[in-house]
Parts: sequence; C-alpha cells; structure tokens
Amino acid sequence: MRLLTRLLAPKAIAHAHCDLPCGVYDPAQARIEAESIKGIAEKYASNEDPVFRARALIIKEQRSELVKHHLWVLWTDYFKAPHFEKYPQLHQLFNEATKMAGASGTKGSIDVASADALLAKIDEIAKIFWETKQA
Amino acid sequence: MRLLTRLLAPKAIAHAHCDLPCGVYDPAQARIEAESIKGIAEKYASNEDPVFRARALIIKEQRSELVKHHLWVLWTDYFKAPHFEKYPQLHQLFNEATKMAGASGTKGSIDVASADALLAKIDEIAKIFWETKQA
Amino acid sequence: MRLLTRLLAPKAIAHAHCDLPCGVYDPAQARIEAESIKGIAEKYASNEDPVFRARALIIKEQRSELVKHHLWVLWTDYFKAPHFEKYPQLHQLFNEATKMAGASGTKGSIDVASADALLAKIDEIAKIFWETKQA
Amino acid sequence: MRLLTRLLAPKAIAHAHCDLPCGVYDPAQARIEAESIKGIAEKYASNEDPVFRARALIIKEQRSELVKHHLWVLWTDYFKAPHFEKYPQLHQLFNEATKMAGASGTKGSIDVASADALLAKIDEIAKIFWETKQA
Amino acid sequence: MRLLTRLLAPKAIAHAHCDLPCGVYDPAQARIEAESIKGIAEKYASNEDPVFRARALIIKEQRSELVKHHLWVLWTDYFKAPHFEKYPQLHQLFNEATKMAGASGTKGSIDVASADALLAKIDEIAKIFWETKQA
Amino acid sequence: MRLLTRLLAPKAIAHAHCDLPCGVYDPAQARIEAESIKGIAEKYASNEDPVFRARALIIKEQRSELVKHHLWVLWTDYFKAPHFEKYPQLHQLFNEATKMAGASGTKGSIDVASADALLAKIDEIAKIFWETKQA
Repeated sequence: MRLLTRLLAPKAIAHAHCDLPCGVYDPAQARIEAESIKGIAEKYASNEDPVFRARALIIKEQRSELVKHHLWVLWTDYFKAPHFEKYPQLHQLFNEATKMAGASGTKGSIDVASADALLAKIDEIAKIFWETKQA
Repeated sequence: MRLLTRLLAPKAIAHAHCDLPCGVYDPAQARIEAESIKGIAEKYASNEDPVFRARALIIKEQRSELVKHHLWVLWTDYFKAPHFEKYPQLHQLFNEATKMAGASGTKGSIDVASADALLAKIDEIAKIFWETKQA
Repeated sequence: MRLLTRLLAPKAIAHAHCDLPCGVYDPAQARIEAESIKGIAEKYASNEDPVFRARALIIKEQRSELVKHHLWVLWTDYFKAPHFEKYPQLHQLFNEATKMAGASGTKGSIDVASADALLAKIDEIAKIFWETKQA
Repeated sequence: MRLLTRLLAPKAIAHAHCDLPCGVYDPAQARIEAESIKGIAEKYASNEDPVFRARALIIKEQRSELVKHHLWVLWTDYFKAPHFEKYPQLHQLFNEATKMAGASGTKGSIDVASADALLAKIDEIAKIFWETKQA
Repeated sequence: MRLLTRLLAPKAIAHAHCDLPCGVYDPAQARIEAESIKGIAEKYASNEDPVFRARALIIKEQRSELVKHHLWVLWTDYFKAPHFEKYPQLHQLFNEATKMAGASGTKGSIDVASADALLAKIDEIAKIFWETKQA
Repeated sequence: MRLLTRLLAPKAIAHAHCDLPCGVYDPAQARIEAESIKGIAEKYASNEDPVFRARALIIKEQRSELVKHHLWVLWTDYFKAPHFEKYPQLHQLFNEATKMAGASGTKGSIDVASADALLAKIDEIAKIFWETKQA
C-alpha cells in the first residue's frame, strides 16, 4: 500500500534537513531510527544470548541518540517563529519526545512499550510538520 | 499528494537498517541525503557569496558520504544471496550508485544534473528493494 | 559574575552531561565552543589567505554544530518540568540560542557580532542553569 | 607473499583511500582492524571479568564497522570497471567480506574462527588489489 | 584555587582549542568528562540492574576517550617548546594522564578511585596551564 | 628498510591499536593518512578548479586529524615506561610529529614539503616502533 503511494507520489517532493539549509527536512529520519529501536527491543526480548544482548544495548544507545539528533534538528532548523505561534505545544512536544529517546525512555529501558511511546510522539510531531508543509 | 499517501499508509510498515540486525531498512535514508545534495546544488548556483559557497561544499561532501554509507548498508546488510540471484544487476547498480555519490559524481561536482542522476539511480535500487519486501 | 557563582558553589557540584545520566552538566561546554567561534571570526577578519579562510570556515562549521549539540543536551537532559514551569522563557531561549549557532547565525556568517550575540545568549542560559543548581 | 609484493613495488606507489581522490588506497587498513578483532576475541576467551567482556564487545563492534567501511571504500572508490571485468568475482568477494564483518560474522560472534575467516577473505581481496597495482 | 585563578584572569583570556588555531583552550573540557566518569562509577556501584550497568560501561568508554582527546589537544596544540622547557615534567604528565583515561585506568576499571586519580592528574595539568596563561 | 623489517618479522606479529587493548598497533595507520595528505597536496598544486581545491582542503583537514589521532594512540597506548627510558627522545618526537600534522604543518599549509616532512617524522617513529617489537 505504502509502496503504491510512493510510486504515485510526484518525485520532486523533497524533505529538508541540513543546516545550509538545503531546505530538505523529513520526520521519517527520526521515525526510522525509532522503528529500529523497537525492532531491537523485540529481538532482545526473544534472545537471551548475552553477547547478542550486549550488542542490542550498544546499538540501541546509538539509535536513540540519532532519534534525539534528528528531532533536535527539526526543532531548531525547520520550525520558525510563526510555527511556534500556531502550535504553542511544539516546544514541549519536542522536549518530551527527545526525553523519551533518552535515559527516561528508550535509552534507559529496553522494552517495546518505550519504543511505541516514542513512535507515537514522533507521529504527533510529524503530523504538525506535514501540516506546515501544506500551508 | 505524498502527504496524503502517507496518511493512508498503515503505520506499522517499517524499514530496517541497523546491523544487529533490527530488520528495519529503508532506501529513503539515502534518498533524503541525495535530495539534500540537490537542494544544495540549486542554492549554490544562485548564490555567489564565497562564504555561502564554501559552506555548501563542506555540507555537500558530508551528505554525499552519507548517501554512500546508507547504500553500502543496504547492499551488505539487507540484500542476501537469493536477492543477488534474482537481480544479477544489483552489484553493479550499487557500485555505480555509490560512485555517483563520490568523486566522479556529487562529491566532485556541484551541479543539479549530478544530483538528479544519483536520485534516479537510488530510485532504481529502491524499486528492487520494495519488490523484495513484497515477495 | 559567572565565575563568582562558580566560586561560591560547593566544589562537589559538578556539571552533568551524559545521558546515563551521570548528573554532570555545564554550560561551559557550549561557551568554550562559542568562544572558539569568536576567535575564528577575529582571525578570519585579519587574514586574507584563501587557504586559511577555507580552514576557518570548515572549523567554524564544526564548532557551531558542537554549540548546538551541547545546548540541546542541556535542554533535553538537564532541564526538567519544574524548571520549565519556573522559567517559562527557557524553551524559546534554547530555540533562539541554537538557531544563533546555525544558518541564520554563526554558521551562516563569519562576523564577530554573530559570535558575541551567541555568547550573550549562552550566558542567559547559564545564568538560569546556575540558579537551578543552587536551589 | 604480500610483503614481498610490497617490497618489490616502487616506493612511490602508494595506497589510496580518500575520495578526493588522493589516489592512496591500502587493504592494510581493513586488515589491521580485522587483526584487532582477532586479538579482542582471543583476550575475551581468556578473561571472564564481565567489565572486560563488555568492553571487548563494545570495541569489537566498532572495529567490525571500520572493517566494513574500509572495504566499502576500496570497492567503490578504488576498483573501476576494467577491474570488475578482469575479476568478475570481485563484487561477491566484497559483499561476502563485508557480511563477514557484520551480524553474521565478527559483529554477531566473538570467536577467533570468525576473525580468521574475515582475515582470509580480506587477504583474497588484497591479493587482487596488489595485482591491479602492478599492472 | 583554580576558580580563583580564573576569577583573577582578565575576562578576555579565553581558553583555546581548535587547531585553526582559534587560541581558545581550557582544561575544563577534559575535567568535565572526567567528572562524568566519576559520576558514572558512583551510579554503577549503587545500581545492579544489568541494562543500566551495560549502558554505564558504554558511556564510560566514550567519556574516557573524550578525556584522552581533550588532553592530547592541549599537549600538541597549546603547549609549545618554551613551556616544555619550563615544565620538563609536562610530557610525562600528559602521557600518564592519558594512560589513566585508558585501559589501565578509567576505561579498564569502573571504580571511583580511578576517576579520582584521573581528576587529580588533570588538575596538575590545569595548574600548569593556568600558570602559562598568566605569564 | 621498514618493509624489510616487516618481511623479517614473524607473520603473527601484529600491530595493535585499540585500547581494550587488543595488542595490535601499526604506524602504517598514520603513514597511510600522511601519504594521502601528500597526494592531496600534489593534486591541489596541479588543479586550479575552486571546487576541487575546496574539497582538497576539507579532506586534508580530516586526514591531518587522523594522523594526529593515530600517533596519539601509539604514544599513549603502545609505548610504556621502559620504552621512554630507552628512547628518551620519544616524547618530543611525538609532540613534533603531531604538531607537523596540525596548524603549523599539514593542516595550515598545502604544500608537498609539509607532507614530506611529516612522513619523514612518522618514519622516525616507525623505526623505533619496529625496534621495540623485535626486542
């Protein structure tokens, strides 16, 4: 289904993200990392090999850091004053989302629920993001 | 349009990418960086300020490296022997794509055409990728 | 003034920064990078050698990114809900400060004034930070 | 044998590796990291201290990633169309080698055998590499 | 004492650290990381959760590497021939300090004593550093 | 000469470099990066395209940093007290070599002579290194 939508979508639609800025941003970057964290949590739960589990924790730490980074970039580089006026909850949303990828969230625990909560929060941000792109 | 398709797409579809492996891969990671390169090339062409242009070259170098990295990860971590049997052109496709993000491509030049060529090549890979996900 | 605050603070008060969290944070990390940016801008202004100037731009880009990173860490990892209640301007302060280390600030320009403005903003944050540590 | 090849090679023949490109490449970069992985596996086997073992796994993960990176660089940046024509097995060789430094190889396991297998595969690549340098 | 030195120093004396060089150096960068290591060791000792402990080891490894890096930068970039003449013990001091942040120190062990020893050594270096800044 | 030393050395003598430590060190890591810097300087001299030259400066900065890093690792992690007693010039040799890869050397200038001087200094270190491995 999503494949179909991708095929049908015009190719030139971009997303922006580097701080030149190039003008390409996409919350998908944070989401992909968060999905990875969820995948890691699921595999961790079903594999008790200590070497595998150590690797899972090492990689989850990196992926959580990437989630934080991608979200911070959106918050600082993409969103501007008019956005914050229109969506006054944005600051807190980003602060909560990045905390949820930190020690009190997917860094500190390795359960699927933490990853799901993070994904839901990223989706809240993504929804606003895409609204601003349509405006 | 793409926004619509995103809204309609089921949320659970993931993409995999870390070498735990978590099982989440998505050619979108390479594509987003390549779109950034295109955005940089466009802005470079229309801005002759030397400081801006130096920054554009610095950032384009990093983004090109990221494209290479994301493609290499797909080639080594996601694609397996049966895929290479079914798509014998895959090796060359990836070799060409990563070269197109290198010195003979978007690293070595700063024109929109190089970025477009890279994007087209990534789309060829993405098409195969999504076919294998549906199988 | 900041030094005085430091002098008066018990030695064991550290500054915390890793997201274990270890409990050690210090706005000095962002400030040192910002001071470096100012030093770079000053040297750039008085040295027209193109190789030197190219290096200055490369390094300034990295240092600006480090300022952003250190500030993001403080905003997400150190500051908690009670702080944001007591200092409702904190979100905007951090958003402005990180923007001032980005394309519209020390990344996009190479003048001493941009660096000074960033330093002043970091000091505003540091003042609040040290107040919360004394509480 | 490889050393002999090196001895016979004119001193100015360098090894190339950066994507300027500078023209300096050397499979030794991947080999040194793989030797490190072997050393780590040997020390891990003879030391049951959990802190030591955790460190070994952390570092082995990084070194395996470096092996993959150095090999990818050779495959994309050094080897050109004529090489792939003359050595049609090259693509598969690199794909296998990088997989052997990943989850199904030295990342996923911590035994000396995995490291030895990786080293042997790197030597296969190095043999071809030095042949192309002599041509 | 160090704080006092800082207080007395003219405000414009910065601390230099990038190799442009920008002229801004500050041993505080190494010290903050070492304080973090101490905080990690303390928390590790009082928390037996294996996931927490794995994270502590992962992060301690990174922080120890940062200590080494910041000290190396001071040793190579800040200190010049006249300093080494006046303080002939400097080379050994830095060699010992960086070793104390390595395998035989805070990387290899997770006890508070190792972190304290490292902090004391950094303070020895910092004392000399600030003396040279006042000269 | 160095090659000869290598030829004569038993194959199992590896080169050690990670701070587990794995016991694998090799000055070749620093030398390969320095050779790259030389290659970059040569290509820079014969190519006046401003985009090419900007890339050359960006990459040379990174390679110089890698030289410094690899040398620092040898100095701190490989060499021990008995080595420094036997080779009292080692500290200064490393301090000079890392400075030669910095602002006063291959970072600050882009001439072949700076790269040659760095290579010669690395070879001095390598000669001592291999002597200690044979002892």
